[in-house]
Amino acid sequence: MHSMDVEGRNRVIIEGIEPEIDGGRYPIKRVAGEKVTVEADVFAEGHDIVAAILEYRREDQESWSEVSMRHVGNDRWEGSFVPLKLGRYRYRVRGYVDVYLTWLEGLKKKHGAGQDLSVEFAIGAAYIVEVSERAAPEETRKLAELAGLLRKGDDLERILQRVGSEETLHIMRTCRERDNESLYGKELTVVVEREKAGFSTWYELFPRSATGEAGSHGTFRDCEALLPDIARLGFDVLYLPPIHPIGSSRRKGKNNVLVAGEGDPGSPWAIGSDEGGHKAIHPELGTMDDFLRLVSEAKKHGIEIAMDIAFQCSPDHPYVKEHPEWFRWRPDGTVQFAENPPKKYEDIIPFDFETRSWRELWEELKSIVLFWVDKGITLFRVDNPHTKPFPFWEWLIGEVRRTRPEVLFLSEAFTRPKVMYRLAKIGFSMSYTYFTWRNTKRELTEYMTEITRSQVGEYFRPNFWPNTPDILSEYLQYGGRPAFVIRLVLAATLSSHYGIYGPAYELCVSDAVSGKEEYDDSEKYEIKKWDLEKPGNLREFIARVNRIRRENPALQSTRNLRFYEVENDNLLFYGKHTDDLDNLLLVVVNLDPFHTQSGVLRVPLKDFGIEPGGSFLVHDLLSNDRFIWHGADNHVTLDPRVAPAYIFHVRRRLKREHDFDYFM
Amino acid sequence: MHSMDVEGRNRVIIEGIEPEIDGGRYPIKRVAGEKVTVEADVFAEGHDIVAAILEYRREDQESWSEVSMRHVGNDRWEGSFVPLKLGRYRYRVRGYVDVYLTWLEGLKKKHGAGQDLSVEFAIGAAYIVEVSERAAPEETRKLAELAGLLRKGDDLERILQRVGSEETLHIMRTCRERDNESLYGKELTVVVEREKAGFSTWYELFPRSATGEAGSHGTFRDCEALLPDIARLGFDVLYLPPIHPIGSSRRKGKNNVLVAGEGDPGSPWAIGSDEGGHKAIHPELGTMDDFLRLVSEAKKHGIEIAMDIAFQCSPDHPYVKEHPEWFRWRPDGTVQFAENPPKKYEDIIPFDFETRSWRELWEELKSIVLFWVDKGITLFRVDNPHTKPFPFWEWLIGEVRRTRPEVLFLSEAFTRPKVMYRLAKIGFSMSYTYFTWRNTKRELTEYMTEITRSQVGEYFRPNFWPNTPDILSEYLQYGGRPAFVIRLVLAATLSSHYGIYGPAYELCVSDAVSGKEEYDDSEKYEIKKWDLEKPGNLREFIARVNRIRRENPALQSTRNLRFYEVENDNLLFYGKHTDDLDNLLLVVVNLDPFHTQSGVLRVPLKDFGIEPGGSFLVHDLLSNDRFIWHGADNHVTLDPRVAPAYIFHVRRRLKREHDFDYFM
Repeated sequence: MHSMDVEGRNRVIIEGIEPEIDGGRYPIKRVAGEKVTVEADVFAEGHDIVAAILEYRREDQESWSEVSMRHVGNDRWEGSFVPLKLGRYRYRVRGYVDVYLTWLEGLKKKHGAGQDLSVEFAIGAAYIVEVSERAAPEETRKLAELAGLLRKGDDLERILQRVGSEETLHIMRTCRERDNESLYGKELTVVVEREKAGFSTWYELFPRSATGEAGSHGTFRDCEALLPDIARLGFDVLYLPPIHPIGSSRRKGKNNVLVAGEGDPGSPWAIGSDEGGHKAIHPELGTMDDFLRLVSEAKKHGIEIAMDIAFQCSPDHPYVKEHPEWFRWRPDGTVQFAENPPKKYEDIIPFDFETRSWRELWEELKSIVLFWVDKGITLFRVDNPHTKPFPFWEWLIGEVRRTRPEVLFLSEAFTRPKVMYRLAKIGFSMSYTYFTWRNTKRELTEYMTEITRSQVGEYFRPNFWPNTPDILSEYLQYGGRPAFVIRLVLAATLSSHYGIYGPAYELCVSDAVSGKEEYDDSEKYEIKKWDLEKPGNLREFIARVNRIRRENPALQSTRNLRFYEVENDNLLFYGKHTDDLDNLLLVVVNLDPFHTQSGVLRVPLKDFGIEPGGSFLVHDLLSNDRFIWHGADNHVTLDPRVAPAYIFHVRRRLKREHDFDYFM
Repeated sequence: MHSMDVEGRNRVIIEGIEPEIDGGRYPIKRVAGEKVTVEADVFAEGHDIVAAILEYRREDQESWSEVSMRHVGNDRWEGSFVPLKLGRYRYRVRGYVDVYLTWLEGLKKKHGAGQDLSVEFAIGAAYIVEVSERAAPEETRKLAELAGLLRKGDDLERILQRVGSEETLHIMRTCRERDNESLYGKELTVVVEREKAGFSTWYELFPRSATGEAGSHGTFRDCEALLPDIARLGFDVLYLPPIHPIGSSRRKGKNNVLVAGEGDPGSPWAIGSDEGGHKAIHPELGTMDDFLRLVSEAKKHGIEIAMDIAFQCSPDHPYVKEHPEWFRWRPDGTVQFAENPPKKYEDIIPFDFETRSWRELWEELKSIVLFWVDKGITLFRVDNPHTKPFPFWEWLIGEVRRTRPEVLFLSEAFTRPKVMYRLAKIGFSMSYTYFTWRNTKRELTEYMTEITRSQVGEYFRPNFWPNTPDILSEYLQYGGRPAFVIRLVLAATLSSHYGIYGPAYELCVSDAVSGKEEYDDSEKYEIKKWDLEKPGNLREFIARVNRIRRENPALQSTRNLRFYEVENDNLLFYGKHTDDLDNLLLVVVNLDPFHTQSGVLRVPLKDFGIEPGGSFLVHDLLSNDRFIWHGADNHVTLDPRVAPAYIFHVRRRLKREHDFDYFM
């Protein structure tokens, strides 16, 4: 900026725009119909009045829509728009000195101070005439009349009424001189995804265990039979581990032993055999037609099938022979299998993304995704994305969504925070999280604050899993049935996305390999027979929690989470509500699965528009109990063996005459 | 990033660089010899070991210097360099997968797990040979020997020693393959200024009052006579209000009355008369030669003269006739004087920066600065920069410093925070602040935290003024002499830059225009006779404080400020130390000018490397008192009428045999 090229009369500064991720390098995320609120510092030197405008457009449109921003203090401005269609939108901020308003304010102050206004009238009249040259005929006439009034200058009352009228302000704003306006130097992007990217409830099962009979291999047809039940439990996504042919070389046996026994089915993540690779279906599960039928039957129950993308091969995958250049070969002539020294994963071969043939490899992997998208799959859970290069994922997701913006990807990255956030920035719609290991009040509060209250929340959408086939946490291993209830309530109410590895969770399975988080007799290496009606199962409870999520919009969002005060470190107290406070929930969870805990909740009455000392009704949606609370401080006791949590629906105003039904 | 243009094998991600102001749009600031520490998130997918390098160069050089960054946790890396010359430096971050270290770590882990290493040896040997092709002959020989050792594979102990030796690591690092390295997308800038931009002590006086005789107009010669005394008080900058001819039209009289009396000298900020404008000297002060002599005499006393740049005119300024197009004319034929409705400043006419002739105006204003730079002035206090457009200042300062990087500008902007910060970003070396109105512990703590602990500290350098000719704060009006002592200690120890409007401060002048912060009988409108030896003056105290600043490097920096705990809201406890802890000061100030206050200071022993319960000597540099403190908690009592503050020099280790002198 050392030359005079700059237009020296663009006086308005625009900076500090939020949200803006990494200087605009990455988009923020929304679902269709979800508001985008933009803030910016907009100011000029001196005392002139400035105005700020938020402009936005769909990426493929030329023209911008605009909304006025409002000043919220300290030179900060705020404006919002609601993108309605899938795809990418752009937004930016415009600022200008509002010459007319500046004149008008000066006029009012001088009038208030009893100063002579005649010169001010003349200045205003001249400016109005200048502006009227850009106005439509009808407006021009009105402005000419107003200028005349000012020049005459005798009817003070009428002048003051007319110069400040809504109509005059509108004309003066829309017809203003635009040559010296400032525009923020960058166009920022919001990716708009379908509603499922904002709210979803996942159920994971291994299709091969879908038959009720021990030993026999389940099929897609067996899965079909389970759909009504899964729908009744309230899940809207059914996620299947890989459904492709499984390799036999170096196949793992029960409990991950190196040599498989006779009849051991192998890990579904060891993809590829003579019978095909990532575009084929494991014959014992059925045919492609069976699979497509499952997909369409599921849809009838309001359930979407999510497929697993695991970009790795068994040693028997056709790629190994057809494209040896995509793998890393060792000096002894063997292909490098997956390892994280000294750990070894002998049944899995990673792709070598540093191959000189990376372009061909990328194209082939893209073709896998598009193959399944063409079959009607638009939801993918991506296995271990953090072991493949970031530029690959950014390219792949961008390519797929350029034509198919409805396709969503869940990142299964349990790894370092920066890596997880980066995957979210480059396009994954949602992500697995550390929730699985966050148990204490402090851990949960800090983690939720990090992912919801910072810029992270603009691009990272958590999906909370209390268990997965890979992870049976210590808390679940030792906490008994109350632990399963507690973790389910937390997952389902803290995050708008959550999921369970189904049968094992419903049945509170807690047997682990000693000293590890691995399930004993893991379903990853064998076919299980689950008795879903076993006493003590959580099925009715899960169905109730999922119904509460469905019926309460406050729970269909994550960033609306707020923590509240309760002086007991074993109690977690938080709330969620819709913008208009129409749907307001308060949740209290006893984090201790062993003992009864009590405490006084401090309800932030003011935030909820409840007067100090006011009474209000809270209705526990889990037990159907109702309480009338008075004022901010209210005592609760939670026995984990009976009910470790309350999910209160708050009725802010008690109007007994209308609410009679509510008390029934 | 939707094409395959990206090099798919650049796996390392570099993001979250700090410092980076507004996405790299603005430089950070340092003085020559001051360290620049850069942090960045540098990571890759998977488990490979990455390395990060900080690169830097002077803007006019082609080649980059580099320093290794070190991992400080959570994928965050840190590195530093020290720019030595004035001007602009660039910095950026490079990252790469360290193939050799990754191999070496894998080897060690497999060795630790007792696995067979022969294939690993072969892989390592092949890689070492590949790298050796880029090595110097002597290194090539060493690498070939090492590869032979690996291929033979029988001398395990020697292999493990050699593959991990410093020498091998160095060669493998410097000769590495560089094709797939990642470079941060932006080059960031640091502006390096001279030392005065880091540490300065200002004294402001009106030359016309420099004679000791009432009524007679002081001259530059009179100022010369004051230099030894100003130097003795420890000031290194003497700032003079405008020294240009003063207009007579609409000249203000005593106490800012609209009509000047006979002989009233007028405000020095009403610049310009028949006798010239911004490049001329007010005849009653002397000649240009007198002024230049003052500048060079001051230099002999270690004092730099700072001039005032006030870009505005009296109605009599030659510009008004010569360039009417630079001013705003009203329909009644008068020129628009300065106003902030309903307030009016009749003796001052602002430039109209929205004039179509803005280019000519900018050039003329630049020529004013360069005129004085050519006379040897390199320090300017800029009056009200926040009433002129930001692009103008950015251009002006950039233009001047392109050839004269030693020129410094102090922004006299008492206005909204965003505006003040913006002026700092676009080039002002230092700035007036809100310190003048921050009196309580909470106010001071919050304000200092904002300007030192955030990114703001990278570009905004505070200059603390307890008073100015425009501002006699309420605290000083009512707090008596203790208030003047308290505010001086705070200004001088919180900020590395501070200044006073001298005579009025030394003499604790506290008479204000009723209900305002304006001095009664302000020197702005009349010639004053100051009796500097008046009893109760602060001269000795000021001299001592300034000597303490000069002798203690910890006080010559602002961002090293840390607040510490003391459970009394009237006591402020803070410290500053050099990086190496060699110079460590603790300051306690009683903020209450009326009452004695006591409290227990909590000294952060651990931060200072003092063992819990350890003893250490603190030496109050103000009173010359010494105390031996034991452990973290130490009690202090401060009577504002005796001494409202301690400035403790902390002696961390008591070695009595050597420290005998210190106790004398």
